[in-house]
Amino acid sequence: MDELRKTGRVTIPTDLDVVPETLEILKKWGADAIRDCDGTDFPQQLKDADAKIYSTYYTTRKDNAWAKANPDEVQQCYIMTGFYTAPGDTVTIPLMKGISPELMQVNTNDDITRWWEVMDRTTGQPVPPEQWSYADGSVTVQAVPFHEYTVSFLAYLIWDPVHMYNATTNGWTNFEHQITFDVRQPKTHKYSMERLRKFIAEHPYVNVIRYTTFFHQFTLIFDELKREKFVDWYGYSASVSPYILNQFEQEVGYKFRPEYIIDQGYYNNQYRVPSKEFRDFQAFQRREVAKLAKEMVDITHACGCEAMMFLGDHWIGTEPFMPEFKTIGLDAVVGSVGNGSTLRLISDIEGVKYTEGRFLPYFFPDTFHEGGDPVREAKENWVTARRAILRKPIDRIGYGGYLKLALQFPEFVDYVESVCNEFRELYENIKDTTPYCVKRVAVLNCWGKMRAWGCHMVHHALYYKQNYSYAGVIEMLSGAPFDVKFISFEDIKNDPHLLDSLDVIINVGDADTAHTGGIWWEDPEISSAIRKFVWNGGGFIGVGEPSGHPYQGHILQLASVLGVEEENGFTLNYDKYNWEEHPDHFILQDADRPIDFGEGKRNIYALEGTEVLVQRNKEVQMAAHDFGKGRAVYISGVPYSFANSRTLYRAILWSAHSEEELHTWFSSNYNVEVHAYVKNGKYCVVNNTYEPQDTTVYTTDGSSFALHLDANEIKWYEI
Amino acid sequence: MDELRKTGRVTIPTDLDVVPETLEILKKWGADAIRDCDGTDFPQQLKDADAKIYSTYYTTRKDNAWAKANPDEVQQCYIMTGFYTAPGDTVTIPLMKGISPELMQVNTNDDITRWWEVMDRTTGQPVPPEQWSYADGSVTVQAVPFHEYTVSFLAYLIWDPVHMYNATTNGWTNFEHQITFDVRQPKTHKYSMERLRKFIAEHPYVNVIRYTTFFHQFTLIFDELKREKFVDWYGYSASVSPYILNQFEQEVGYKFRPEYIIDQGYYNNQYRVPSKEFRDFQAFQRREVAKLAKEMVDITHACGCEAMMFLGDHWIGTEPFMPEFKTIGLDAVVGSVGNGSTLRLISDIEGVKYTEGRFLPYFFPDTFHEGGDPVREAKENWVTARRAILRKPIDRIGYGGYLKLALQFPEFVDYVESVCNEFRELYENIKDTTPYCVKRVAVLNCWGKMRAWGCHMVHHALYYKQNYSYAGVIEMLSGAPFDVKFISFEDIKNDPHLLDSLDVIINVGDADTAHTGGIWWEDPEISSAIRKFVWNGGGFIGVGEPSGHPYQGHILQLASVLGVEEENGFTLNYDKYNWEEHPDHFILQDADRPIDFGEGKRNIYALEGTEVLVQRNKEVQMAAHDFGKGRAVYISGVPYSFANSRTLYRAILWSAHSEEELHTWFSSNYNVEVHAYVKNGKYCVVNNTYEPQDTTVYTTDGSSFALHLDANEIKWYEI
Repeated sequence: MDELRKTGRVTIPTDLDVVPETLEILKKWGADAIRDCDGTDFPQQLKDADAKIYSTYYTTRKDNAWAKANPDEVQQCYIMTGFYTAPGDTVTIPLMKGISPELMQVNTNDDITRWWEVMDRTTGQPVPPEQWSYADGSVTVQAVPFHEYTVSFLAYLIWDPVHMYNATTNGWTNFEHQITFDVRQPKTHKYSMERLRKFIAEHPYVNVIRYTTFFHQFTLIFDELKREKFVDWYGYSASVSPYILNQFEQEVGYKFRPEYIIDQGYYNNQYRVPSKEFRDFQAFQRREVAKLAKEMVDITHACGCEAMMFLGDHWIGTEPFMPEFKTIGLDAVVGSVGNGSTLRLISDIEGVKYTEGRFLPYFFPDTFHEGGDPVREAKENWVTARRAILRKPIDRIGYGGYLKLALQFPEFVDYVESVCNEFRELYENIKDTTPYCVKRVAVLNCWGKMRAWGCHMVHHALYYKQNYSYAGVIEMLSGAPFDVKFISFEDIKNDPHLLDSLDVIINVGDADTAHTGGIWWEDPEISSAIRKFVWNGGGFIGVGEPSGHPYQGHILQLASVLGVEEENGFTLNYDKYNWEEHPDHFILQDADRPIDFGEGKRNIYALEGTEVLVQRNKEVQMAAHDFGKGRAVYISGVPYSFANSRTLYRAILWSAHSEEELHTWFSSNYNVEVHAYVKNGKYCVVNNTYEPQDTTVYTTDGSSFALHLDANEIKWYEI
Repeated sequence: MDELRKTGRVTIPTDLDVVPETLEILKKWGADAIRDCDGTDFPQQLKDADAKIYSTYYTTRKDNAWAKANPDEVQQCYIMTGFYTAPGDTVTIPLMKGISPELMQVNTNDDITRWWEVMDRTTGQPVPPEQWSYADGSVTVQAVPFHEYTVSFLAYLIWDPVHMYNATTNGWTNFEHQITFDVRQPKTHKYSMERLRKFIAEHPYVNVIRYTTFFHQFTLIFDELKREKFVDWYGYSASVSPYILNQFEQEVGYKFRPEYIIDQGYYNNQYRVPSKEFRDFQAFQRREVAKLAKEMVDITHACGCEAMMFLGDHWIGTEPFMPEFKTIGLDAVVGSVGNGSTLRLISDIEGVKYTEGRFLPYFFPDTFHEGGDPVREAKENWVTARRAILRKPIDRIGYGGYLKLALQFPEFVDYVESVCNEFRELYENIKDTTPYCVKRVAVLNCWGKMRAWGCHMVHHALYYKQNYSYAGVIEMLSGAPFDVKFISFEDIKNDPHLLDSLDVIINVGDADTAHTGGIWWEDPEISSAIRKFVWNGGGFIGVGEPSGHPYQGHILQLASVLGVEEENGFTLNYDKYNWEEHPDHFILQDADRPIDFGEGKRNIYALEGTEVLVQRNKEVQMAAHDFGKGRAVYISGVPYSFANSRTLYRAILWSAHSEEELHTWFSSNYNVEVHAYVKNGKYCVVNNTYEPQDTTVYTTDGSSFALHLDANEIKWYEI
């Protein structure tokens, strides 16, 4: 196995200026794939190396000749202006205020009375087209004085947003803005297929076409100062055109309105309880994107290459966890790994032959400069991702950027070598098995599997003050010994037996968002299904404002299940006596310091009969409650940490009445985790920290042993 | 004036055991009224004293013979049980769980199918009476499994809640529970008028009948442990009976439902945006209570006594700021003074000859015990109330409790003497004038004048963590040189010119509560009227989540006016760049330490063009924004303090474009305030603190002088 372990499953970048070094790294890291250099001839020595060659392929850009010759098929997006108050009988609204004119251009070619919408936001009603007109970049509205108005309009993406981002971030000069063209439209569709064949023919040494990506960029808007103005990694607003929307109308059989995409300026982001119309639109896009992507993949295969998709940039509509995805016929998916959650965003994808994670740091000057510490970043990235890999491995790892920069840091080169070896070892140990799962856990929200592992994510793996306390739950689950599902409220309605297959349901997020459900809780089928599940013995974990939606005497619709409620003033008149803490509760028994609830939640109080585990300043942070034969746990927030991960782990076990299963494949020290692969007869003990750790390892049947681990160490054992 | 100042305007309590001392205190404090002793003969020496004699009169209790003889006319209240989940086809709900059986008794005498309501809280629908039944204290419901149910039912008040409170708090033993009877009902109505005449006839030495109070107790419920369970000083749920509700039905012309009172278990408390039905019910009660109270007042007058109402206990339906109140014909109102706001709750009442404030501490053993410090409490109470008295004086002050206890604290007796003298002096100086008002300010909420000075109040003057940051605004206004109105959204609809009479509008509270307006912001008339007001030059101060109600792309409906918005996840995708603070802003120029925003608000961010005054950890705490010709100020919370009072004062001036009016009747030191009474040719400078203060006093025309004040000192000047 030692030999095997030293080769394969690793992709490296290269460049013309580091050809011999590429060959050295190839050997040192045991890499078996090379990413081609952007826009240049590929060196013969590398062609001759024993490695697959990936070529990045830009489906929607890098062909301005075509884009300029076919301006009607440049990609479009929907945009809403800001809110404008009418100070009198008219109000004039400049469309492009706040938007970079280098990025977008107003589309006045298509019928604006059909495709634009002026909204009276004071009444919530659209203004009839007879009552507004467009001239010189502005819409003038015949207004009701002191009502507020917005304009929703179509704009062309005259500079590809990712190209703009790269150019702006890296300070590029003297280059042409790449225009995004829309492969979905007829001329470009036809042309793109020919262009693809031609590209493959002209790059015979390429083994893998790495699509970056298919057709529609996630929403990414810059302002006049070229600062990011709006970003939604899941956003669909740049996947539109009258051509597409006409088809959509025909398919769904009702009239399209810009508001379906604009959504009051919220653009159907992940926090919004999705409307029927938006879900219809996503479904339509998934089908159409899959159909067209399949055409390209088929060509790729016919030309003798593998087809790999980059999970990012123009990935909108591919939705890898939805059924249409498999029909594309891709060989592989590659994506950037920012943490455990984003690792599983890739590794959980089904219907491809292999998945690949691109690890950080990217070989860019922001890290690889004098005084930079790329080893630290690499360690953090690797150790964080490793937890998730141990649950569900990607098949390959890789790095990107300028290899030359990395070579200047020999310590980094050595560290990556150790990562590559460690990855290969663990992959070998765990491949083809399902690791030991102590419980079946489902995260319940409005999106279900479509946003599996990515719920609470705004931009890829980025921190937001408002959601890190919730994203921590997902990050914890990404590396925990649970069989994790992501289910939607619709799933519960569609399959009455869905909940029977679960031990514990988690609902995490703020009130009246898609993450907790909002108006779905007014559906008696939903609320009674969840109550029945818990009453009959199921576990429920609520984080933040679980089931939060004011209705019929509750703010938290599951208040009776959770045993806690939120004070918004409506119940200030009720005296609250239940504040005594129960610090010896099972859930708290590894909490060796005050728990960090992150942003937490204010104004939560416990009902009578609830066990308050933690309250601060008469605000309940954690509580446990029996409901029928089941149990519920409330937690105000779970930012990711090893300590919190352990507390949540205990909470899940407690809620499932499974306290006695704690000491199975378990480490007494919460900085250390144990993963078992029973089918393969292996288990490992892994130190997630950058310091040595001592622990007691529990295997099965009450067996245990003391263990010392070096910083970051992983130790493998036979069962 | 000195002689005059030494007598009058003061009421004292007495008791049989302190008759000579009462006469001494009467002289020392210059008192001119004595409250009679409870349930005993009044001593002749006191009858002969040169003082009015008040007699407390309990309209609705202290006559158990009558109550027991007429159980059908015992006062009733509506109660909702807790929420019960149906674990199967039926669910049994014990009605009195959580309620003291000594306090209430289920009313099964009236038709329960008509007057009770079983609610399916999962669907929000009532369960038809055929599907539930009552037996042995419980209702059994034919249920949909795992739906939640509540029962709304009528109960008799078999122990007067205030009597129960007094008995429980003071540990009384060997006494009979006083039953509350309902004077509104026919037999008791007739009997009560005779009882009143008889009482007056039997107490010929009494000058003033002090009603405690009229007919309906505010909502006050105790649990099985006799702990307070629910309190709403403004609550109407104990003002009901089938007799009354039948009349209500006839008047409004639609069918009464228990839910109109129960309100999902929230009992229409002050935080709830009031429903039409509840407002109808309040109006009905106001008219009926006023009519019946007038009967008693007329009898009082006919018998040669004055009629004084205690603003508390059974005061429900009297609503002193509503037009019906004046028709009662009362001579006086007396109320407890907890702070400046509750002072004005009394002193702003119109339509009576005089108002009286009962000051703290009450002469009870909780304060007047060995080691107690009644002087400190008296000082705090007096100095806090004095701010408000200087704006709008009550006509009399008084004390209550056991005089004997106070006598044991000679320092206290001396301090109260100084308070009485100070009160008489200031009353003389300011009577019959309107003090100088720099601006006309209105607090806008759903209740308007009906809850003037009491908005954000749950129980009388009590602190609640959730509202002290809002109540601070009202407390500040109670002693500030503004002409203060309380207006409702309905007022704006009823009078299109209402806003023309204002300089600044304040909206303060949490989103989707009656204090900020909730669904009223979906009314285009309302939102455009406010926008117009500001656009044309008005000022707007928003505190907490002003205009908070998610609708049409805003969380704060006046986001465009305020220049700030709340992040609830829906706009996480938007980049926020406006965080730079402007610490030199006019509003902050007296802020000599970090501002205390109290509970504050999370997740507020500033729109482009807004001046951020204070942000903490990227959460805006204070911001200023121009809107048209007007200005708006956002503040996350204003707990009451002298420093905050000054900041809010400056904010109001700034929002009204009146910075140049700052140095008029103004103290540079914010612990000191200046009040001017131009008509009377007087002004005073008052030190609100318990330490000496130095300040510069600004009068008019830029004149100023330096001044030293002793602790708590008030100095009077001629203009």
